[in-house]
Amino acid sequence: MNRRTLAADIGGTNIRAAIIDDTGFVHKEKCISAHLSDKNITEQDVIQILTDFFNNFLKNKPKITAVGIGFPGFFIGNSGVLASSPNLPNLKNFKLANMLSDSIKLPVIAQNDALCAAMGEFHFGAAKGQKNLLHITLGTGVGGGLILNHAPYTGEGGMAMEFGHLRVDQSSSARLCGCGGRGCIETYASASAVASHYFKLSSIQLNSKEVYEKAMQGEYHAMNVLEDAGHKLGIAIAQAVTLLDIHTVTISGGLIGAWSFLHPAIMSSLNNQLILPMQNKIQVLPSILNDQAGLLGAAALTRL
Amino acid sequence: MNRRTLAADIGGTNIRAAIIDDTGFVHKEKCISAHLSDKNITEQDVIQILTDFFNNFLKNKPKITAVGIGFPGFFIGNSGVLASSPNLPNLKNFKLANMLSDSIKLPVIAQNDALCAAMGEFHFGAAKGQKNLLHITLGTGVGGGLILNHAPYTGEGGMAMEFGHLRVDQSSSARLCGCGGRGCIETYASASAVASHYFKLSSIQLNSKEVYEKAMQGEYHAMNVLEDAGHKLGIAIAQAVTLLDIHTVTISGGLIGAWSFLHPAIMSSLNNQLILPMQNKIQVLPSILNDQAGLLGAAALTRL
Repeated sequence: MNRRTLAADIGGTNIRAAIIDDTGFVHKEKCISAHLSDKNITEQDVIQILTDFFNNFLKNKPKITAVGIGFPGFFIGNSGVLASSPNLPNLKNFKLANMLSDSIKLPVIAQNDALCAAMGEFHFGAAKGQKNLLHITLGTGVGGGLILNHAPYTGEGGMAMEFGHLRVDQSSSARLCGCGGRGCIETYASASAVASHYFKLSSIQLNSKEVYEKAMQGEYHAMNVLEDAGHKLGIAIAQAVTLLDIHTVTISGGLIGAWSFLHPAIMSSLNNQLILPMQNKIQVLPSILNDQAGLLGAAALTRL
Repeated sequence: MNRRTLAADIGGTNIRAAIIDDTGFVHKEKCISAHLSDKNITEQDVIQILTDFFNNFLKNKPKITAVGIGFPGFFIGNSGVLASSPNLPNLKNFKLANMLSDSIKLPVIAQNDALCAAMGEFHFGAAKGQKNLLHITLGTGVGGGLILNHAPYTGEGGMAMEFGHLRVDQSSSARLCGCGGRGCIETYASASAVASHYFKLSSIQLNSKEVYEKAMQGEYHAMNVLEDAGHKLGIAIAQAVTLLDIHTVTISGGLIGAWSFLHPAIMSSLNNQLILPMQNKIQVLPSILNDQAGLLGAAALTRL
């Protein structure tokens, strides 16, 4: 039977949803803007917004058997309870899955958005057929999700894979991160870090996409910035590989547009950081799903 | 029923074994010397040595239901197959558990020795009652074992938790490790690193036990060496916690005799490396089983 799931990828300002079948085919994708990060938003507001949006998909009884949701924040195991969300500080211990299930009368699974993206890449994307996956998202920040033995790994308090805050520089001159620490990989490889690093070298204000386009044209500072981002990513990935003996890594986000600079820099520094028997065993791949990874992973979560 | 297991902790030069019951009570512990790391040793030699030794325990039919073995090297998942062993290079893809089981006519489980020690600490020691554990062994080298969701974690090729080779210093002056890399935690926190670091500062040749005794007496260089080891351990532990959201860490090895220096240094650097919501949530505990952790963990493995 080809089951259909309603999947949603929820951000602070936009909510995307689609109906997804067992093969990963995406039907009827819709997007609305909804400002969930408004300071005064309540749990009931979130449930109402999602119920109204989802009813657009459900009104013609399309035989949907479950709903999967990717949401920014820390979830407690597989409970569907949002412990907290850095960008939605009003929501604490929010029983998102249970409350939404009561409202729309369907089973609901909810999980961290970056972990959903990892699940998407694992089940339908570049890591299809693997056993384990380290998925890294290079956006405004750097995040990711971890799949161990085919299962999403959430950690003791839902805070596993704070990948962006792995430290890759312990020197006293290491860059200051928004978290208050120094030398986090996020300060080298996020889109905003790439733009600000480029500005420091060139005194020209570009966004990260413009920086990687410059690099592709052979511009010296832009190439430097991307090679440094790749080098530091290799250091952070090596920490995960050394601990977890994972052989597959996927990377998503705009910066993978500059894969021809990023990938060699990552691989050279990664292999340099690993013990001999692990060298050249790790594949680092660009995401092939891009902004649909989250939707597809949210759907995959309902089939575990 | 109180089941009895024959457990063994196998090293390159010594083999220890004992009968262990469900409560973790250790009966009839015996130790023999056997030079398994001899260059010309064969699989059959190892099986013969272990069979002869184990028959001492089995000859009076003591109702033993299974045998658990901790062995130095990389095992493929839970198969009991030793893929390779850095100190026993002659043994490759050695079906240790199966061959020994055929020889002694009992079910045999075999696993990496440091992972066995982690299992011992998890089931019978300082981490009893926890869900996850990062166990670190500070010996000639630095190693360890990882328990995730109550299960031993081995990684894709049995090489998870190469903890000693996490890099904690990326500077060009970082110490050179035996693995060929630079800045590995092993070059700061192993017993041999502590002794050699102390010699560099003081020009006095002491072993690591003598260094920590000096530190307990307030000797300046010895205190410095242990505080630096603790500081670097905090950096390495933070990498694991940031990736895995693990809340319990145990440490074994002679150096924990200097816990009053080591622990504050570890905690201060660990908390300094973590994002705010993780700070002060991690407990780092000294092993309470010491050299019996491996035996007890090998027994625990037979009960999974």
